[in-house]
Amino acid sequence: MILEIAQIDLKPGTEADFEGAIAKAAIYFQNAKGCRSFMVRRSVEKPLRYRLLIEWDTLEDHTTGFVNTQPWKDYRALVSPYFESPPQVEHTELSLKAF
Amino acid sequence: MILEIAQIDLKPGTEADFEGAIAKAAIYFQNAKGCRSFMVRRSVEKPLRYRLLIEWDTLEDHTTGFVNTQPWKDYRALVSPYFESPPQVEHTELSLKAF
Repeated sequence: MILEIAQIDLKPGTEADFEGAIAKAAIYFQNAKGCRSFMVRRSVEKPLRYRLLIEWDTLEDHTTGFVNTQPWKDYRALVSPYFESPPQVEHTELSLKAF
Repeated sequence: MILEIAQIDLKPGTEADFEGAIAKAAIYFQNAKGCRSFMVRRSVEKPLRYRLLIEWDTLEDHTTGFVNTQPWKDYRALVSPYFESPPQVEHTELSLKAF
């Protein structure tokens, strides 16, 4: 299982609009092959910074199965107007789950 | 519930030593008041980058209840020799759990 972590910095004042848009956009992920969970978290220290935490069965389910498809474009059309800068996206593999 | 995300970049070649040390250090978190889970993940794109994902009941359970205590110092003594640079630590609050 891959956990995608996408760090998004918003334009000031767009937080509520972004939160509404990302809630609508989640359906595109729910319908994507291999997408297992979708969570949005907001930084305490930097309130304009959000992170999407998205679980995928495989790296390719995201990178070749979803990115640049029409549902991905529809998702980006909903939320990208609020981005201050391009999202920073990384994929992570589990190293340790201690408890 | 707060999710702490600590981004750690390692000195090249120390990955195995770090993974052994962080596995030993997890007990300090397990014994900390309000610490609910402890996961270590490794970046696919940047294999020297790890992230600790740690759940706390409250922000203060981490920032004032744990940081700078003796168990925190013991944890840092185990793992900090492998750090390339100071960890980047942020705390996040849940904004949306879509599925």
